[in-house]
Amino acid sequence: MMNEVVRLSHGSGGRQTHELIKKVFASKFGIDGPLTDSAILEINNQTVAYTTDSYVVNPVFFPGGNIGKLAVCGTVNDLAVSGAEPIFISVSFIIEEGFPLNDLETIAHSMAEEAVNANVRIVTGDTKVVERGKCDRIFINTSGIGTLPAGLTHISTGKNINAGDKIIINGPLGNHALAILGARSELSFSTSVLSDCASLNHLIGKIIRNCKGIHFMRDLTRGGLAAVLNELAEMIQYGIIIDEQNIPVEEEVRGLCETLGFDPLYLANEGKFIVVVDRDEENKIIEILKSDPLGAGASSIGEIGVENHKVILNTLVGGRRIIDMPSGLMLPRIC
Amino acid sequence: MMNEVVRLSHGSGGRQTHELIKKVFASKFGIDGPLTDSAILEINNQTVAYTTDSYVVNPVFFPGGNIGKLAVCGTVNDLAVSGAEPIFISVSFIIEEGFPLNDLETIAHSMAEEAVNANVRIVTGDTKVVERGKCDRIFINTSGIGTLPAGLTHISTGKNINAGDKIIINGPLGNHALAILGARSELSFSTSVLSDCASLNHLIGKIIRNCKGIHFMRDLTRGGLAAVLNELAEMIQYGIIIDEQNIPVEEEVRGLCETLGFDPLYLANEGKFIVVVDRDEENKIIEILKSDPLGAGASSIGEIGVENHKVILNTLVGGRRIIDMPSGLMLPRIC
Repeated sequence: MMNEVVRLSHGSGGRQTHELIKKVFASKFGIDGPLTDSAILEINNQTVAYTTDSYVVNPVFFPGGNIGKLAVCGTVNDLAVSGAEPIFISVSFIIEEGFPLNDLETIAHSMAEEAVNANVRIVTGDTKVVERGKCDRIFINTSGIGTLPAGLTHISTGKNINAGDKIIINGPLGNHALAILGARSELSFSTSVLSDCASLNHLIGKIIRNCKGIHFMRDLTRGGLAAVLNELAEMIQYGIIIDEQNIPVEEEVRGLCETLGFDPLYLANEGKFIVVVDRDEENKIIEILKSDPLGAGASSIGEIGVENHKVILNTLVGGRRIIDMPSGLMLPRIC
Repeated sequence: MMNEVVRLSHGSGGRQTHELIKKVFASKFGIDGPLTDSAILEINNQTVAYTTDSYVVNPVFFPGGNIGKLAVCGTVNDLAVSGAEPIFISVSFIIEEGFPLNDLETIAHSMAEEAVNANVRIVTGDTKVVERGKCDRIFINTSGIGTLPAGLTHISTGKNINAGDKIIINGPLGNHALAILGARSELSFSTSVLSDCASLNHLIGKIIRNCKGIHFMRDLTRGGLAAVLNELAEMIQYGIIIDEQNIPVEEEVRGLCETLGFDPLYLANEGKFIVVVDRDEENKIIEILKSDPLGAGASSIGEIGVENHKVILNTLVGGRRIIDMPSGLMLPRIC
């Protein structure tokens, strides 16, 4: 790696991010097994999930949320999709000198509110301040701990996945990415699209309590649905087939994607996840999801099937195309 | 707080940091009790300590360590001084576009090495990349989890402290701060002083296993000994008296402090802690500390005594002065 440097694409959540993590971090840190969002650990015979994320979203305030709400939701969701019940959150701020205290209070208030909403406790924190120009307004790290019933440790690894399992999503794609783009002052379009930023743990708790056939879950953040499905296809013995006609995308998001040249499959979300389930439980899961505002747009989008480790999209016009792992520079600082 | 902004002093670890945390964060997040470095929590009847810190040290590489080693040692020490045995660490990177991959590998290598040294596992992580000029090279957050014997939960609160308890330090003050200052290219002095950056958990484990009378511990980072003693005096019913002649400071550090106008009591350390013990165990603790390279410079520096919540220094020349909580701008980005 002589003379190579870190590029924005290393932070995009796609192929380059994975390569960096595998080459530089996972090997040195001895992290074996799949690189899931949460580590699954044992503390005195209690299985826990443990996760961390730093948030550098630009802008700090955006339609549907702010960096503080995002930092709580994101860590709650990383724990929830591993099957865990999130209980404790840590919060660490890196703040640029000159950042308005009112804005900091607004952000802290959003975090407190979202923590109450998600029923997690913010229990420890840290504050650093750097000189003007040495960070971009404010960055927030949250880490989180959740407890995991011993019977659910397969959810983050996907090891129980079988051919024929159904893939279900809880709602339309792309809203977070387009809300952020619309809020960036350098871009000349405005939109009424709101970020979907939300804590999914209560919704996920409902399906966990009511369905025995949950084989995998993952939230659809950086890199979008395309990244998650490609990671999944790499983890398991099978390929994946999804149907474009069943993938929910709001009308305005679809229009903006066409105008701007984005594919909703690759856009970041902050309140969406996929769940892979035994096909016998497909209808039950859809019903439970649809009974909750955060799952009202739920849809069964495809299934586990072919044995080629590829993600195949059946297109609206009746063709098929391979959905690759996102590669290169996507939208920087979307979360 | 209308029109007020965040200032560098809010990140200094002194009075302004405490005010910011108390006013903005602790109240909103519902964190009650003393603002210790680690939260003490229960997970299924197992007491755990949980902590987080973001590291923004400038420069990233300095004599005696780098930001990666510091990020592991700092979180290990926060857990260890609460009485916990550190077991798991999370690592989250915010990297500036263009940062050399070689440097990132060096940092990751130091983290891995220090984790082995401290016997903690790095189990989960995150990587974000921001555009050139939007952060200063690299910032690292680490959070950590440690297990805590039920009988040791008093150590971080200091609630068992009594008048007459002895205050012991494991070595000389100020090396980390002066190593960082010396490494900053804008400063025109050079020094052979090395940062004292080290994981203290094994040393602390020795005294915990051998002494029953440990009433409080804290590491001496931002704000130095002065900040910790003032926090302690605020937490307990007593004041504190320390003797300047017993406070260890290396010759070169003392000389630089005199030249530069610093007081070693206020300088940051990254491998120093105080322990407050029953006076009957003073000698035993000193003996154990001195038998370990990280405690070779141990010294008994004072005691818990007067009832005025103040920190009093008996000076070398026979006078007395009050050691205040550090206030205003100290050395930014020392950790």
